[in-house]
Parts: sequence; structure tokens; C-alpha cells
Amino acid sequence: MFMHNKRLQYTVRVAEPNPVLASLIIEQFGGADGELAAAMRYFTQALGEVDPGRKDLLLDIATEELSHLEVVGSIVAMLNKGVKAQISEASMKEADLMIAVNAGGASQKENLLFGGGPALIDSTGVPWTAAYVDSKGDPTCDLRSNIAAESRAKIVYERLINVTDDPGVKDALGFLMTREIAHQKSFEKALYSIENNFPPGKLPGIAAYANAYVNTSQGEGDMDGPWNSGEQWDRIDDLEQVMPFDDGDGTASVTLAKKDEAAVAALATRTQSNPGANVATGADLGAGPGAGRTSDEDLGGAKDIAEATAMAKKR
Amino acid sequence: MFMHNKRLQYTVRVAEPNPVLASLIIEQFGGADGELAAAMRYFTQALGEVDPGRKDLLLDIATEELSHLEVVGSIVAMLNKGVKAQISEASMKEADLMIAVNAGGASQKENLLFGGGPALIDSTGVPWTAAYVDSKGDPTCDLRSNIAAESRAKIVYERLINVTDDPGVKDALGFLMTREIAHQKSFEKALYSIENNFPPGKLPGIAAYANAYVNTSQGEGDMDGPWNSGEQWDRIDDLEQVMPFDDGDGTASVTLAKKDEAAVAALATRTQSNPGANVATGADLGAGPGAGRTSDEDLGGAKDIAEATAMAKKR
Amino acid sequence: MFMHNKRLQYTVRVAEPNPVLASLIIEQFGGADGELAAAMRYFTQALGEVDPGRKDLLLDIATEELSHLEVVGSIVAMLNKGVKAQISEASMKEADLMIAVNAGGASQKENLLFGGGPALIDSTGVPWTAAYVDSKGDPTCDLRSNIAAESRAKIVYERLINVTDDPGVKDALGFLMTREIAHQKSFEKALYSIENNFPPGKLPGIAAYANAYVNTSQGEGDMDGPWNSGEQWDRIDDLEQVMPFDDGDGTASVTLAKKDEAAVAALATRTQSNPGANVATGADLGAGPGAGRTSDEDLGGAKDIAEATAMAKKR
Amino acid sequence: MFMHNKRLQYTVRVAEPNPVLASLIIEQFGGADGELAAAMRYFTQALGEVDPGRKDLLLDIATEELSHLEVVGSIVAMLNKGVKAQISEASMKEADLMIAVNAGGASQKENLLFGGGPALIDSTGVPWTAAYVDSKGDPTCDLRSNIAAESRAKIVYERLINVTDDPGVKDALGFLMTREIAHQKSFEKALYSIENNFPPGKLPGIAAYANAYVNTSQGEGDMDGPWNSGEQWDRIDDLEQVMPFDDGDGTASVTLAKKDEAAVAALATRTQSNPGANVATGADLGAGPGAGRTSDEDLGGAKDIAEATAMAKKR
Amino acid sequence: MFMHNKRLQYTVRVAEPNPVLASLIIEQFGGADGELAAAMRYFTQALGEVDPGRKDLLLDIATEELSHLEVVGSIVAMLNKGVKAQISEASMKEADLMIAVNAGGASQKENLLFGGGPALIDSTGVPWTAAYVDSKGDPTCDLRSNIAAESRAKIVYERLINVTDDPGVKDALGFLMTREIAHQKSFEKALYSIENNFPPGKLPGIAAYANAYVNTSQGEGDMDGPWNSGEQWDRIDDLEQVMPFDDGDGTASVTLAKKDEAAVAALATRTQSNPGANVATGADLGAGPGAGRTSDEDLGGAKDIAEATAMAKKR
Amino acid sequence: MFMHNKRLQYTVRVAEPNPVLASLIIEQFGGADGELAAAMRYFTQALGEVDPGRKDLLLDIATEELSHLEVVGSIVAMLNKGVKAQISEASMKEADLMIAVNAGGASQKENLLFGGGPALIDSTGVPWTAAYVDSKGDPTCDLRSNIAAESRAKIVYERLINVTDDPGVKDALGFLMTREIAHQKSFEKALYSIENNFPPGKLPGIAAYANAYVNTSQGEGDMDGPWNSGEQWDRIDDLEQVMPFDDGDGTASVTLAKKDEAAVAALATRTQSNPGANVATGADLGAGPGAGRTSDEDLGGAKDIAEATAMAKKR
Repeated sequence: MFMHNKRLQYTVRVAEPNPVLASLIIEQFGGADGELAAAMRYFTQALGEVDPGRKDLLLDIATEELSHLEVVGSIVAMLNKGVKAQISEASMKEADLMIAVNAGGASQKENLLFGGGPALIDSTGVPWTAAYVDSKGDPTCDLRSNIAAESRAKIVYERLINVTDDPGVKDALGFLMTREIAHQKSFEKALYSIENNFPPGKLPGIAAYANAYVNTSQGEGDMDGPWNSGEQWDRIDDLEQVMPFDDGDGTASVTLAKKDEAAVAALATRTQSNPGANVATGADLGAGPGAGRTSDEDLGGAKDIAEATAMAKKR
Repeated sequence: MFMHNKRLQYTVRVAEPNPVLASLIIEQFGGADGELAAAMRYFTQALGEVDPGRKDLLLDIATEELSHLEVVGSIVAMLNKGVKAQISEASMKEADLMIAVNAGGASQKENLLFGGGPALIDSTGVPWTAAYVDSKGDPTCDLRSNIAAESRAKIVYERLINVTDDPGVKDALGFLMTREIAHQKSFEKALYSIENNFPPGKLPGIAAYANAYVNTSQGEGDMDGPWNSGEQWDRIDDLEQVMPFDDGDGTASVTLAKKDEAAVAALATRTQSNPGANVATGADLGAGPGAGRTSDEDLGGAKDIAEATAMAKKR
Repeated sequence: MFMHNKRLQYTVRVAEPNPVLASLIIEQFGGADGELAAAMRYFTQALGEVDPGRKDLLLDIATEELSHLEVVGSIVAMLNKGVKAQISEASMKEADLMIAVNAGGASQKENLLFGGGPALIDSTGVPWTAAYVDSKGDPTCDLRSNIAAESRAKIVYERLINVTDDPGVKDALGFLMTREIAHQKSFEKALYSIENNFPPGKLPGIAAYANAYVNTSQGEGDMDGPWNSGEQWDRIDDLEQVMPFDDGDGTASVTLAKKDEAAVAALATRTQSNPGANVATGADLGAGPGAGRTSDEDLGGAKDIAEATAMAKKR
Repeated sequence: MFMHNKRLQYTVRVAEPNPVLASLIIEQFGGADGELAAAMRYFTQALGEVDPGRKDLLLDIATEELSHLEVVGSIVAMLNKGVKAQISEASMKEADLMIAVNAGGASQKENLLFGGGPALIDSTGVPWTAAYVDSKGDPTCDLRSNIAAESRAKIVYERLINVTDDPGVKDALGFLMTREIAHQKSFEKALYSIENNFPPGKLPGIAAYANAYVNTSQGEGDMDGPWNSGEQWDRIDDLEQVMPFDDGDGTASVTLAKKDEAAVAALATRTQSNPGANVATGADLGAGPGAGRTSDEDLGGAKDIAEATAMAKKR
Repeated sequence: MFMHNKRLQYTVRVAEPNPVLASLIIEQFGGADGELAAAMRYFTQALGEVDPGRKDLLLDIATEELSHLEVVGSIVAMLNKGVKAQISEASMKEADLMIAVNAGGASQKENLLFGGGPALIDSTGVPWTAAYVDSKGDPTCDLRSNIAAESRAKIVYERLINVTDDPGVKDALGFLMTREIAHQKSFEKALYSIENNFPPGKLPGIAAYANAYVNTSQGEGDMDGPWNSGEQWDRIDDLEQVMPFDDGDGTASVTLAKKDEAAVAALATRTQSNPGANVATGADLGAGPGAGRTSDEDLGGAKDIAEATAMAKKR
Repeated sequence: MFMHNKRLQYTVRVAEPNPVLASLIIEQFGGADGELAAAMRYFTQALGEVDPGRKDLLLDIATEELSHLEVVGSIVAMLNKGVKAQISEASMKEADLMIAVNAGGASQKENLLFGGGPALIDSTGVPWTAAYVDSKGDPTCDLRSNIAAESRAKIVYERLINVTDDPGVKDALGFLMTREIAHQKSFEKALYSIENNFPPGKLPGIAAYANAYVNTSQGEGDMDGPWNSGEQWDRIDDLEQVMPFDDGDGTASVTLAKKDEAAVAALATRTQSNPGANVATGADLGAGPGAGRTSDEDLGGAKDIAEATAMAKKR
């Protein structure tokens, strides 16, 4: 069960209203790697967890992330406090208010639609979606996902700090950023407390495919590194060898029952294309006589885009 | 630039059509941790990458994931080949066709809307969204995200293998699952090839907040582990200490200009609630005389839900 | 700041695993009117609220809804506990496991993708979205929205109770449903504690349009009621009177600068349709000589759909 | 069946093109509380309604909202008419056109993607989604939702009026705003025409839980009001009393069959964390010797964020 | 199977960084008619295609579109290269960096969230969704959809060219635009290579309804054209004739079993509205004595919106 | 302005309730190619259209599609009428009601969440989104998109007819399907009434790229057809020729200012990977000594997936 105290986990001291900054910081309120995403990621994992240690850890951090959500939301609320009152009371001239509302990012939506209150949207106004939460119910996966999520949140806070010059806001963001580092450390500890955490899950891999590195992107820029070279890897440069990787013919097939076979044949016949046809098309109708082979004239004779643009202007 | 050969990376041999199985496997085609998500994750990272080694690695694996997308899509196409033809040719009775279409999961949508062709939806019909791609443009984040993503994909393949009894499909899924293990290894190597990869990014944390573990979830079930105990941690059990963590008063404040202050005051006055009011409400109107204090009678006198259900049936 | 205790607000006693029931109840976990939606609705309102009474109320109920989210998630976790372990350990035959996974609703996704852990999806697998949260930052709106939201949540719990025969689950759902009634009452009280709460907001309406009822849907079934008749209403049955409602000509116009006018004229000329043309079309090409006027033969001579179906089968 | 007349319900007279204003007003075209949301909300309710009076009411207002959608869309079309022609005809310099397109809000998308035509997006470019429609098929819910929706739409129009200085646009918005007030009144009448409309639905609540107010958010700022105090309420300040609210132990449990129990035990064992382990982690590898206990030096010795920022710049 | 070469299909020469232009061009990377949409549209069609000619065509163009995705992404990466480094290294003043990040469109999100790397979002930050892919698994549909999609992509490139003054970017966009023209031609050829491609699918239409044009929108502005007039059409101006079109009564009905009938009757009775009631409502409570009939005074006596605005300011 | 008559455009006679059929037909109510998508597609185009003929056409068909939306919704309402009443009145046993609710597709959501009323969701419960509407504000695009959309809607109706055995429903679907054919014909006429409708838009293509067909997918299965062969095409089989297509070097470049160059260099240095490193990784820690080179033993010695599965069961 959750409880709440009206004091924040970190004091929020905003120097002055700033709707643009609000529209950036809202990324950590309702964005992909924001605090709601963090809280929900750990909370949903906790509910299904059978290991008591991990369950406790997940609940601790989920609860702290809710408190961070409150801190971030309070920053946004303070930054928008002026414009919220102005738009509600209509105490500024329309044109001035429009400038304030149109400050940048999602600030229109924050103000027009949410009245300056913190909303669960990101910096471009996209509503938060649980598609951001990638829990799988397996600890050797989920802890890796949590480690990655904390590192992403850390980076977004770092970037916000880099664009903020309000000292109180900067301080609070620094606190929040550092807590993500601490949380990442906790999740690392929890992952490595599971013996045999790699490969994740229970099913072993198939030895024949596990050491291969397939060099699918070739040409200038091919590089060696510990990720594809050395004794741990069988590197495959000749791609013909893996078309297919197994000993089959690289096609897809299915054994159909008679009635399905008949239906497939009927479908194939009915929708057959005639490769030898010299067909006239809608585009031919729409473009005039020359539509088939595009001559210089058909497309305006343009040899490059400057010429094409010039022609279009004359039309 | 991409090129393509019509042979698959792994031969697909499906024993017989099976729309239910198709509706599960489609998770790895258009689902959150499916092959499109993987390909796009690495491809978009590659485009912005400045390190030539990582760029090559990302392009190699992105390209291979596109080939895996093709393998998974081909499995789905084979599993649906019968029903696709039947619904197009209408060669079965309506009732039988409806049963086939309504087999499970997203199979209605796969068949009605996509005609049995593989679609970029997950096992419940949700369209793929780039919200699944969590690249941040920082390698110490993105490689961790990639490691986690590969571990998630591995687990989903494992679960699909566990519910599949078609040997050809099982084989192909085993190949795909093992390749995720290999990819995870590559991304681990690339991460640890960056010196000082923790904390991610450039900005150091603030020492005062980095070792604290805040025990926000208490009560029976509190546990110790390397994630919250031992010499690396300052564990805080008395939560009053962190309300707030800093030396402030735990409130949120902003300094307003005069005109904003006036507007805020006007807003507060206009929308003030009267806490002492003994107000009648719409619910009071709708519920009859007893709506304020709910007596047993108002809610039907139910003491538990069985009683309440019984009463509702009588109404 | 939030705190947590591992005891639930209501004891969850599930009689036996039941993935189908889980796939329904998840509606109140990650669905449109579920507990996350409720908690986030009130929490985001609280952050921007200037009235201390309403702020406290919103925080109280937001926090309680988080505890309800925990209760609902715990029910789902218990209902899926068996299948979660089976799919992780692969201790059942594939075919049996597939039946378990394919039980109904979003159960495929819950199990394959989320490993049986409670996920923030609705009963058909759609991820939770903040588009469900309709806070506007104005108390005379938001309290009405909250009243409505509580009434919706009440109804969904009622329907879940109606399909559940597990007594422990039914009890917990009954508790949760009743709390929504209590919350609705609180929000009603808070709304009517604001003097002059109708019309919402600050700007008065325009008298000329405020009493009109426009009877736009006519024909058999037209009804009278207090919503359109009586002394409070000017009912308009002759719609010509409101085409337009004002004294203008009912068109849309804008005054353009010269250069814009010229561009509009150029655009109009360039894309002009020739209404007198007797044009042949792509459909004509594709359908053969008779594509213009559809004769009986062109469409197969079908007079009704039975005939059309029969013809299609013969093709 | 629907019919249409080309005259609008309100004459639209726009003073001059203004893509910024268009990008704000589009909120009421394709936004959460815009006219499509309103029309679809009432229309879908009407289709399932069995009461003839409410069915007629819902169809009347749904149809009027479609006409409002047309008025709003026409305003947007007029405001964008210049830029639409300019971008189609390319009759301005590129740099000037880019400034026009990049005016604010969603104007890029409106112009680049939709060619200046009104699109079903909100002020930040998010496409309209039926997730905004919260109909439940129960009149005591749906009418409350409609009342709330009208009040939200009223507020958004009020805010748009507050930022608009084009008199013709302001007039049209005033008309639309007032009609929302009238519609709210109609829905209020319809709600209170249902006897016993509270609690919504059929199932009564459970008396024991219906009068309780749980004071979950405590600390400075706790307030009394008619929503939690007075004779109608049993206020609970000692939260231990409701952990849990019932007479159980506040845990979640399920009775498992033998084979499920065995699988759960296997899962627990396999993924067990070792709380006593003194594990080295990936973060330890990435951070060098000091990663466990973070010393001042590890994080750069920063005591606050100013210091941390300074250090980062030096790196 | 896919392969990749690190050379692009078209050389990308960007004159200088330009985050605003990046935020527009990203429309063709992650927007509705961008290159990922194109590639996925054709690729998914290819997987289910039984005709070998079309399958080859679809794979050829799908693969080329992936290469175009790479070209567009590379343009975006170059345009953001400066700001990406600045935000990562924090080597500019905060205020300057904020201006750079807040340049326009989705640039906040591109930079804060994606670190300046190309992301699968559109010009307003909306993540790419497979809802953009409208493949149906029927070639007479899908080829028409492909023709339309190519024409849409052509137009978006044209508009981007019109706002771009960087010659290298303009060139690359011109190349990409022209390739869409070529692809449209190919799909036209493929469509008309199918005999009897209209109407699409197999089932013929019903002759009685196939030639009718229903003139549902009347009033000034009614026009004639080959789309509704001439020998091919039976134009219906008297809409009474098609209410309904068939010989029924235009109502909706279903035959219910007894128990369903009883339940419907119970539902109707329980939720019956009382049309004769003179009910007081929540709005009446909230508005004071005059809430029913709105007098001039109730709404502030406003006759128009200017007056209403003035009144609101006085409150 | 819109008007409405309560008679439908086609009489709906449903033989008996059938929630499964409802859950399929709802695809045409709230699905991607359903009637709302059609109505909104044409309506939004009409608002921005300057050609009076096309504007009238678009309004006519938009209005008719709204009437079709009403017909489809009425079918769904009738098919769900029984279960709607049963779930509201709770007049069936819980277990029976659960079976009814869990019938297939999105029926859970339709019933639990929407109370059996028609909802704007597709057959798997995904809410309708304006992302389905692909209008571009250019008639040579939009008419092609409309032609394609009508052909898609036709096919979905055809498939629904193929799975429906209720004669009244089948009739209504046949009517709706045929109207799509008629609408497609109208849009074809309107497209070809525009002279020079190909290529769409105003800007001509560049001759050098317009006739090329790039054979990017090679290997067995390469085919010839009018789409890539014959006098209209320059077919490129040697892909080296188009790496790149222009005369550049196929790389991406941008000219950076000095300060950006310095920042890029700093970023590159800071995040440099060390390709020669023989690094130990987190996976190495997690997997034990053999994690680098995967031996048979590390992955369980599995040679194929059957063996791997057997091993996993033993663990």
C-alpha cells in the first residue's frame, strides 16, 4: 500500500517562470525515459516477482521513482505557473499570450489543453504510452532492461542540465541524475547475484550458431574489434555461406491439405500477372503519350533539381 | 546501400498451416521486441555514430536483423497460407471460415484486414510503433539498451519454442534465438571496449547522493542484498531524513513577476473551494435523500459482494 | 514524497489460476478507466492545483488509487502464476501450453511478451496511453471529469464482478468498486464547494446561443424531454434558420494578400478539374469495355449478395 | 442517415492568414476534446441506446458537433490558405517558405504533410485517437462523461479565445464555446431524468467501504472540507487500520495445483538471487576499481551540480 | 537475405548544420509517407505474395526504399551533427544550447531524447507506427495503395525541396523524389498486368447499387462532373428515395431469444428517462437560480464575444 | 452543415445476436479501412479543396460514408444486443456470461469496456487513429489515395461477407461493398478530369533517374515484366553502378564550423572504442569462464533445438 507526504524528496526552487524550459523538462515527466516509465517498469516487475529480495528492491526503487515524478512535475508546474494564471484569467493581451503559449516544443498543448498543469506528454506533446515499458517477467532480462533504462534516464537528465541555466532547476536535475546512477548500481548488483545469468532465460543456445559473426555490411569502412574478431568468433565474410545458414535451400515451404492447395492454385490463377503484357496504365492516361518511356521533355527536360525547380515556377 | 537475395538466411519448413501459431509468432515480426524493432534500433544508431568500429558493428547486425525479419515473416506467411487462400477464394463454408479466422490472438485482424499476409502487428494486433526503439545517441547508453533488447528477444523466442510443436518452425526459432545470444555478446564486447563507460555519458554524479539506498518500501518482506547493503551503500530507513534529501523545506516555489502574481491571486480567488460548506451535490440529487451519509439501505444494505449481487439481481 | 508498505489495502485470495479471468481484469490495471488512469489523473491535477483543499484531496485519492493498482495487479499476478511458471520452465507439453497461452483476450501477449506478469495493457492488449487522462487544469472541468471517471470505473468493476465466480476475486472487486463510489462522492462535494461552477471557466457564454436546442436529427423517433423542451429552451426544428445561426452567408472566407491570392489562383488553375470531360479512367482500363456504366453483366449480373457469392465461387 | 448543406452553421470570416493560430485552433479539430471527439462520443452512444429520448438527444447533438467540426476545419483552412498555395506553387523563396512552415506548434506537419489542409491532429501534431472516447454504454456513466466533455471543450475554446485577436475567428469561437454550454445543460437534464442515477449502474456498493475517507497523503498541507469531513464521512488517518481494510493479512495468494506448484518452485530456484553475494558487476568493470563505493573522486569529487558541470567541461 | 554496402545510393553533401531543416526532413525518415513506411509496405506484401513476378518487383523496390531510408537518415545526421556534439560535450553556454535545441518542429525531441541521431519520428515528434501500412494481401488493392503511396511520397519530397535552400540537400531530395515517380510507374504496370483488376477482389458488386450517385451534400455549390453525371450514373437528388435504399423500413432489428428479451426489457426499464420530468440538475446547483433558462444576466449579458471577454476581465 | 434522419440508408435485419460476428464486423466501424476512416478522409480533403467540383464530390461521399458508419454500427449494436443486456442486468450465471464475453476478437473489450455498444476499435481492440487518414492536400495524390482506400474497403467487406452466414447481415454488407465500387469509380473520374495528373504535384522529375529500374533483389526468382523491362526502362543489374547513382563517392558529409568541429572531435575521443582490446564483459561475468568462445558445453552441447529443449527440461 502506498502513502504520501506533502514534502518533496528534493526542494524545488525555480528562479522564474519559463515555459520553454518546462516544455523540455516535461520529457522526464511524460517521456519515454521519464519517471513514470521508470516507476511503472519496476512496479509491474515487482508484482510478478517470486524472489523476495528482488521484489523488495523493485518496490523500493519504484516508490522512489514516483517521488521523482513528483519532483519533476513540480518543476514543470512552477515554470508554467505564470502562463497558467494568465491564460485562465485572460489578463494579458491576446497577442502577448499567444507568444507565451507558442514558446516552443509542446508548450501550446501544455497550456491550451492542459492549462499549464504538468501533463503526461513528452517534449513534443506525444502522450505517454506503456509501450515504453519493456518488462518481460524474467529477471535476467528485466534487470538488464532496468540497467539500460537507468542509463538512458541519466543521459536525458545530463542533456537537460546542459541546456538549463536556472540554478535551482539545475540542482534538482543534478540530484535526479545522480539517483539514476545509484539505481543502476543496485540493478547491476541484483543481476550478478543470479548465478548463470547469461544467456538469459533457461533454454541454452545451439552451439553451431553461437560463435558466428556474419559480416553483412561490407565495403569501405569494414572494421575489426573484439565484437567480431579474435578467438571467440567465427567471422563469416562470404555471405553465400549463410544463404542459408542451415543445410536447406533457403526457401519457405508448407505442406498444404488438398483443399488448401486447390484454393491457393485458384488464387494464383485469378490474380496472375502477365509479365509479357505491354500494358497501358492509369499513369499513361494521366501523363499523355510519353508516359511510358520518360523523355527529357516529359519531366520537363530537367537534368538536375535546380532546373526542375525553375521549370515548376514557370508552369 | 542495401541489397537482397531471395534465399533466406534459414530455411523455413512448416509442417502444416496453423493460424493460431501464426498469431503468436507474429509477436517477433511486429511486436515490441521483434525483428523490426531490432533492425531499426541498430540502423538508426549506426547513422549517427561517429566511431567507425561501432558503426560497422551496428550496420552488420541491423542488416542481419532484416534477414531475420524475413525469416519470421516467411514462417507466418506459410502458417497462414491456407486460410489466406480460403478467405480470398471463399471456397469454404462461411461458418468454417469464421472458425478459422477466429482462431486466437490477432488472427482475425491478420486475416480480415491483412488477408493472411504478415503484418507489422503484435500477438494482440497492436501495430508496431517506433516508441519501442529507445536509442539515445550515446554509446554507453545505447549499447546497454542493445544488450537488454537482445536478452528480451532471446526470451520471447524461448517462450515461442516452448509452445511450438512443429519441428521445422521450432528449428528456425532455435536458430533465431541463438543469434540473439551471439548479438548480445557482440554488444557486450563493444560496451566494454569503451573505457570509463560507467556512469554513462560525460557528467559525473554528485557524491552526496550516489551511495544512498532509500528504503521506501517497508513492512514485512524487507530484505538485504548487495543492492542495498554492505560497505558500498548508505542505507536510509528513516524516511523523514529524505523529506527532503537536501537542506530545504521540501516545497516547490517560483519567483513570480508582479503581473503574474496578480493573475495567480485572481485565479486562486475565483476558483477557491469553500471547505466549510455543507454543500448539496449532483450525487445527492441523483441518489435521493440519503446520498450524503451512505446508510446500509442506500447501497442496498449489502455487507459483502455476494449480498450486493443478489440484491442487484432482484432489482 | 511517496512511501510504501508491502501489505495490500485489501487481501487478495484467489481460488485458482485462471488466465482468461486475468485477461479481463487487466482492463482495470492498464485499461482506459483502470487504476493507473485514475492515479495519474488526480496526481497530475494535484501538481498544478493552487487551492490547498483540493490539492490535498487530489493527493489523497491519487495515492489510494496507486494502492488499488497494486491490488488489481496482484490479482492478475495470482491468476497467471501457474502459466507464468509453466512457460518459463517449459514443464508442460507444447500443445498444452499453447492452449493455456491462447486462453482469451490479451492472454497471449500477457504470457508470451510479459511472461505472465501484470502489464499495463487493456483486455485486448492495447498499451496504456496518457491520452486517457483528460485533465485540463481548471477545477470546474477537472472535478466533472473526475466524477465521470469514477462512475466509469465503477461500471467496469460491476461488469467484472458479473463475470467472475471466484469468491475471493469477487470480494476484492467489490471493495474496489465501492471505493469508486466513495471517491465520486468526494469529487462531487469538491465541485459544489466552488461557487459559480457553471458554466465552467471564467468566460460567460453569449446569451443568443445559450438556450437554443437545434433538432438536427429528425424523422420518426423525434422525442421531447427536459433536455430540449420546456421554458428553458428555444427549440429549432426548421434547420434553415441555423444555416447559419448568425446573420452571415454561411461561407468561409479569408482576406489574402496579393501574392497569396496569385498563388491560390495558380494552384486552382493548375489542378482544375474539367467537369465536362468524358474521361476514361484506370478503372475503365482494368474492367474492360463496360466499366463506365455498370451493367448486370459487368458485376456478374448479381441482384443480391447470395447470387454474387455464388458467382464468385464459380470464377 | 446523414445529409449535408454547403452552408456552415456559423459564418467564418478570417481577417488574414495566420498559420500559428491555425496550429492552435486545430486542437479543437483533431485534439482530445475537439469536435470529432464530441461527435463520435455521442454518435456511438446513440447507436447502442435503448431509451428513445436519449437516443434522439444523442443523435441531435452528435450531428450538430459534426457541423462544428466543419466550422473549425473551415477556420483552419482559411488561416492556412496562403501557405498552402505558396508551398504547392513554390512561389516564395525557400527560406521565406521555411519560416512560414516552421511557424509554431504542428504547423510543419500541417503544411508539409497535409499541405495546409485541416488534419485530424492536435496542436502538437498527435493524430486523433478513439482512445479519447470514453463511452461505456451505461447512461448514468455516459451522461456524466458527456457533461465533463462539454465542460472541457468549453474551457479549451475559452483559452483559444484568450489568445486570438482576429475578430471573426474570435466570434466563431465564441459561438462554438456557448453551444458547449447549451449541450452541457441538455446532458445534465438527461442525467437527472433518470431516477436513481447514483451510484451509476445497477450493483449497490458495500456499506462498510462507502463512507470511508482514507487520508493517504499526510504532512503539512492536510486540509478539511466537505469531501472528507462532517457527518457523511468516516475519516481514517491511521493508515495501519487499512493495511488491509478487510480482516485478512494483506497478502496476495492463490491455490496452485501440484504441477503448477512444482513449476513455480523450479522457477524460484533457477532464478534465485543470492543476497549474501559480494558480486562484481558490469558497472564495476566499466567504472574502474572504485565503482562499488562511490568516492568523491569516482564521480569527480563534485559536491553540487555546478562543480560537476565544470568538471565535465574539462574532461 | 539482405546485404549492405557502406556506400550510399546517393552522395549526401550538406552545406552546414541546420537543426530546423533536419526537423522537417525527418518527416521522410519516420513520418507517415516516409521511407520506412514504403520499405515495410512492399516488404510485407512480398512475403505473402504468390505471383513470382510481383514478388520480385516488391522485393526490388522494398530493398531500394531501405537504401533511401539510409540516404534520408544520413541527411538528418549531417544536419544535426553540430548540435549533437554540442549537447553531448556541453561545450556551449546553456542558453545558446537551449536556442539550438528549441529550433523548431521536433528538434527538442531529436536532440534531448535521441541525442541528435535520426529517430523514427515525424516532423512533430510522433513515433512511426505500422498503422501507416495499409497492405491488404490482395494485389488489386495493394498495387493501388502502392501507387497512391508513391504519389504521396513524391509530393512530400516536392514540398521539402520547396523549403530547402541547401543545394546538396536539394539535389538528394530531387533524386529521391524522382525515384518515387519511377516506382509509381512500375506499380501501375504491375496493376494493369492483372486482367480484370476492377472491381478489386473476387466478389462482383450488386448491379442495383453500382451506378447510383447519391447527392447527399446539397445547397449552393452543387456541381456536375463525370463523377456523378452522364450516362454512367443514376444520380439521386431526392434523398427520401434512399432512406433506405432497399425496400425495408430503414430500422435496425434483431431477433432475440426470450431470456435476452427479458434482460433488454429490464435494462430499458431500469435506465428509463422520464421525458416529462422538470428536473433540477447539477448545473442548476452550480449556477444559481437562473441556470435553467439562461437570461442575459446569467451569462453576463454578453451579446457578442467582445462583450463577453470584457466581462470576464472584470470578474 | 449536417442534418440527420433516423432512418438508415439500408435496413438492418439481424437474425440473432452473435458477439463473435460483431467483433469481426467492427473492423469496418473503427478499423483502418472502416467507414470513419473513409468519412474523415473525404471530409478533411473537402475543407481545403479549392476546386468546386471536387469539393462537392468529396462532401457527397463523406456524408454518405457517415451514413454507412451508422449502418455498420447498427449491425454491431444488434449483434451485441443480447450480451449488452445480460452484462448490464447480470441476469446470467457468471461463468456463462464470461463465455459470452470472451467469444473472440475484441469482444471482451466491446463488452466489458464499452458495454456492448459499438466502439471505434478494430477487430483486435485497437482504437481508431487518424494515422489511417493519408490526405496530402494535393488532388493528384489524394484522389489516388481515395481510389486505393475504396478498393481496400471493398476487399474487407468481401472477406466479411465470406465469413458471415446471417442473411440480413450479408445483404447489408453486400450493399456497403457495392457502394465502395461506385465511389471508386467516381474518384477515378475525378482524377482523370485533371489534365496532366502524372507525375502528381507540380515539380517535374529529373530525367536521369526516371527510367531506371534498380534490380536490388537478385538470386533465383528474378523475373521480367512490364514493370522493369521493355523499352520504357533502363534496368540496372550491376548494383555497383548505383553505389552511388550520382557521380560522388557515396558518403555523407557536412561542413562544420570550427567550434562544432572541436566538439565532434571531443565526442569522438571521449567515446572511442578500442578495437584491439581483449575485454572482459558483463556477459563473461554472468556466464562463467567459457563465456567468450561458446563451446558445446557452455550452451549445453545442443546441436539442435530438440536437444536444447530436452536439456532445458532437465535443468
